[in-house]
Amino acid sequence: MTAPDATSVGLVSPLLFQYKQPFALQNGTVLPSFDLVYETYGELNQAKSNAVLICHALSGHHHAAGYHQGDRKPGWWEHCIGPGKAMDTNKLFVVSVNNLGGCHGSTGPRSTNPDTGQPYGPEFPQVVVKDWVASQALLANHLNIDHFLAVVGGSLGGMQALQWSIDFPQRVHNAVLIATAAKLTAQNIAFNEIARQAITTDPDYRAGNYRIEDTNPDRGLMLARMIGHVTYLSDDGMANRFGRELKSGDIDNAGDVEFQVESYLHHQGRSFTQRFDANTYLLMTRALDFFDPARETSGDLVAAFEQAQARFLVMSFTTDWRFSPERSKEIVDALIAAGKDVASTVIDSEHGHDSFLLPIDRYTSALRAYLDHAYNVTVRHKGP
Amino acid sequence: MTAPDATSVGLVSPLLFQYKQPFALQNGTVLPSFDLVYETYGELNQAKSNAVLICHALSGHHHAAGYHQGDRKPGWWEHCIGPGKAMDTNKLFVVSVNNLGGCHGSTGPRSTNPDTGQPYGPEFPQVVVKDWVASQALLANHLNIDHFLAVVGGSLGGMQALQWSIDFPQRVHNAVLIATAAKLTAQNIAFNEIARQAITTDPDYRAGNYRIEDTNPDRGLMLARMIGHVTYLSDDGMANRFGRELKSGDIDNAGDVEFQVESYLHHQGRSFTQRFDANTYLLMTRALDFFDPARETSGDLVAAFEQAQARFLVMSFTTDWRFSPERSKEIVDALIAAGKDVASTVIDSEHGHDSFLLPIDRYTSALRAYLDHAYNVTVRHKGP
Repeated sequence: MTAPDATSVGLVSPLLFQYKQPFALQNGTVLPSFDLVYETYGELNQAKSNAVLICHALSGHHHAAGYHQGDRKPGWWEHCIGPGKAMDTNKLFVVSVNNLGGCHGSTGPRSTNPDTGQPYGPEFPQVVVKDWVASQALLANHLNIDHFLAVVGGSLGGMQALQWSIDFPQRVHNAVLIATAAKLTAQNIAFNEIARQAITTDPDYRAGNYRIEDTNPDRGLMLARMIGHVTYLSDDGMANRFGRELKSGDIDNAGDVEFQVESYLHHQGRSFTQRFDANTYLLMTRALDFFDPARETSGDLVAAFEQAQARFLVMSFTTDWRFSPERSKEIVDALIAAGKDVASTVIDSEHGHDSFLLPIDRYTSALRAYLDHAYNVTVRHKGP
Repeated sequence: MTAPDATSVGLVSPLLFQYKQPFALQNGTVLPSFDLVYETYGELNQAKSNAVLICHALSGHHHAAGYHQGDRKPGWWEHCIGPGKAMDTNKLFVVSVNNLGGCHGSTGPRSTNPDTGQPYGPEFPQVVVKDWVASQALLANHLNIDHFLAVVGGSLGGMQALQWSIDFPQRVHNAVLIATAAKLTAQNIAFNEIARQAITTDPDYRAGNYRIEDTNPDRGLMLARMIGHVTYLSDDGMANRFGRELKSGDIDNAGDVEFQVESYLHHQGRSFTQRFDANTYLLMTRALDFFDPARETSGDLVAAFEQAQARFLVMSFTTDWRFSPERSKEIVDALIAAGKDVASTVIDSEHGHDSFLLPIDRYTSALRAYLDHAYNVTVRHKGP
């Protein structure tokens, strides 16, 4: 662990929310109970009006800020969460949760099915964004949070923030949607499907029962992560970072040549197999594919937003080709057509979809300004 | 076989060129001999001035036009080659060759190594674009073709046409470079590397000796093709073709759902495993990665073109993100800076990189006009 500084929330410990009642999923399955692991940063004020919910993306988890005992690296959104930062923990109470179906402590494929005494594995039901939002609302109840000052997320996390504004209109004052989309494109689905194929065709996948059979689909998971990673980066960003430099060997000995970008991807792929569960990866990509907040309004996104009461901040990044600014514009246009209060900005960045995880000054400044204003209007003026 | 029509070259048979002398490759390996399988369409005139060479792309082969006995489908560039077509076989003698290292009849990983009596398999040496061009020049010698009226290719084929103009400046009157690039980007290399990883990590790859061991890396080859295919299509083109329609099942039974685009990719991937060799695929993608015509001029593409004598036609397609119009512009800019005669056009198409294989009117018209003019200037005015 690096020495804590004044802008970090410092040492944090995960907390566990145990929901001991049946929980019905969108696909009809009923979970007899579930756990959610989460972290909080800052203090909930007396009026319980300063809570912000962080929703994580495809391969994310609850550990968004600060340090776990013994860890050298902080949470994945450390530069955005802490005293004086965009999500200022001197003012805000930040809640960050690992989603249902995850592999970092919340109930998911690795958990034991209480009905059978065996791990769920591939039998874990397919959860969708609506299920995550519903389970997060139960966590909010548990924390006595009646409404969130803001629900914030990037990518798949932005989809949850969007769904929150529709499913719980009175519980969300602000929805911050970053680098996201109201629906996947065919290309998005195609890349997800190739990643799933890589996993499920790995002989070590064993129809999803790899843990029982004491193996792991490392090859497939590695490929899936490599595919994902290329789509998270921009062509120009990769060019600037890796160029076309050889890492080893000479082009005259072609068999031994490795390009810098290859070695980077291999590293990314290999390290992912150490920390992520294949069944969870399949489940999360399916949740992405199925996301469709306009499904209940016959595909009409404007109608879907009709009941929303939140103010919206929609942000995207110029070189993001996975969820391009055009996809954000579709959300903004629907919000405007629905007569909602929406601010939006496109941030210049060469880092593609990954931008939403990076400390880009104009991005974090915009987030800080928006949340400061929201705090001033909703919390300070009414008294904490 | 469909009924031959007046615009098809009709029934064709492959021919074999056997080069019985040692052939030194760029990486230092010497092939003791090699075969190239090829086809020709039209008649070589007496002056031998009307020959056009077709160079194929990553997964292509020599069968570009007409029908093989018993086949229902014509060659891969049927709409561009034939009587009255862009490559008009009433005027031109078109030569189409399967590249060295291929898997359609030319010497490659499936061939027997005369030194060992065993199939080359993974031991087949890495050939690069310069090697292909050199071997094609030997075929031209065999056919008594001193110079080509045009060398034409798309994608990896365009790279060969480009290299021809540099390596044999006096043997190429016109170089037609379609949807290509002077060098791959880091993103291009990344996608190629993921495809290679998919193949080489397939347990059935057996370190490349899958044929001897009577297996085939179908899973890996299928994934490689699926990855390639997504990069050949544009986001908008996929959206128009597949939308986000479900093929089967209902979203409430998430496990059984399949999107149209998934089923399309599965089909593409599976059928590819029937007709392509994994070692050849690895070799071809490496040749793409290594392509660098400016390597001998310290990265200076303008200097690389200095000796070129050809006229150039450079074509690209608006939605091609694998080899975008920007990459073609780099070639055009270098040709202009080198004082060469270059025409270029960007064709509107929603079909991404695949456009170069499709019958797009403005594209085939531009090609026809260019080649007609070249024929009139070089052949007709001087007498056939």
